[in-house]
Amino acid sequence: MNKIITISREFGSGGRELGRRLSEELGIAYYDQEIITEISKRTSLSEQYVQAIAEKRPSFSFPIHIHHSFYPGINPVFEHSLSVYKEQTNIIKEAAEKSDCVIVGRCADYILKEYKPLRFFIYADMDSKMKRCREKAPEGEHFTDRELKQHIKGIDKGRAQYYEFYTDHSWGDRLNYDFCINTTQVVIKEIVPVIAKLC
Amino acid sequence: MNKIITISREFGSGGRELGRRLSEELGIAYYDQEIITEISKRTSLSEQYVQAIAEKRPSFSFPIHIHHSFYPGINPVFEHSLSVYKEQTNIIKEAAEKSDCVIVGRCADYILKEYKPLRFFIYADMDSKMKRCREKAPEGEHFTDRELKQHIKGIDKGRAQYYEFYTDHSWGDRLNYDFCINTTQVVIKEIVPVIAKLC
Repeated sequence: MNKIITISREFGSGGRELGRRLSEELGIAYYDQEIITEISKRTSLSEQYVQAIAEKRPSFSFPIHIHHSFYPGINPVFEHSLSVYKEQTNIIKEAAEKSDCVIVGRCADYILKEYKPLRFFIYADMDSKMKRCREKAPEGEHFTDRELKQHIKGIDKGRAQYYEFYTDHSWGDRLNYDFCINTTQVVIKEIVPVIAKLC
Repeated sequence: MNKIITISREFGSGGRELGRRLSEELGIAYYDQEIITEISKRTSLSEQYVQAIAEKRPSFSFPIHIHHSFYPGINPVFEHSLSVYKEQTNIIKEAAEKSDCVIVGRCADYILKEYKPLRFFIYADMDSKMKRCREKAPEGEHFTDRELKQHIKGIDKGRAQYYEFYTDHSWGDRLNYDFCINTTQVVIKEIVPVIAKLC
């Protein structure tokens, strides 16, 4: 069975960078944006649209039991969210079958549970997450501290809702992970060779 | 500054064994029962009594604001708990000054925060904690599954109350630790050389 490493992460914790560097350190495949591109190809939805609805809980503009409702139409965004998740599941399983790999986010820890992945959860305190976000902010982004904090909390709330919708487990609950790593006072680049020893 | 490693752990997670083996692997001092013995010497309380009140929140048979109350006497167990904690704090700081070391439990992560310890939290799911407890149970201990579960939960509840009383932080809150390690499917002996690489 291939060596599968999944990285769940709080926004701003440096988890994505850690995942990418870890794959380089170990010399194994890394899946992140490639998954969006592949979903886009398979569903004929634009990458931008897939990006917008991936890792978000489906939106219910119609009642939850949509197939049993008396509404004449079906909410297309809801349908697309389910299709995207389905394709994402297929792609993630294909990746796991293909070779050793690191997969960031996307419920991969749950989707691949039969492959016994090594599951990391990366977190940090709010100040250091804000600092990381400021350092990586696109030009022209001008959040106040309060807005940035709300932004970070909002993204993690979305990730939690997404994870819970599809897995029925709590995102961030330590029992869903093998190692939880606090990156508050850590330079990601420096910690990766050490983390690689755990894999 | 010496290398200080603190191990907080759920009851039955194998955290104590992990701490002991880690100190052996790293060839550094290990403090656990020695702390009780030393407190006993310094306070002239029996080891058995110190053991019974250490790592427990002081018991309030009298009002919390005991020094401002109108009660004529002072609850001796409450006083002893505070003395034991005070001596424990001194002993833990002396240990940290003396040499590299591993310290299990006893709010050491908080007491030694100025020494920037590497703080581990060891946890596992309930089934594996019950299994570990059964394997290490003293002869003659016959808990039903339900009783054992209650016993484990009760001990961890006590540890949480103790930690929160003295540190004003939440025991088990991942932000208080650098690494949280799930020992559910782990043989402690096998994981220790890997954990040592993190130190």
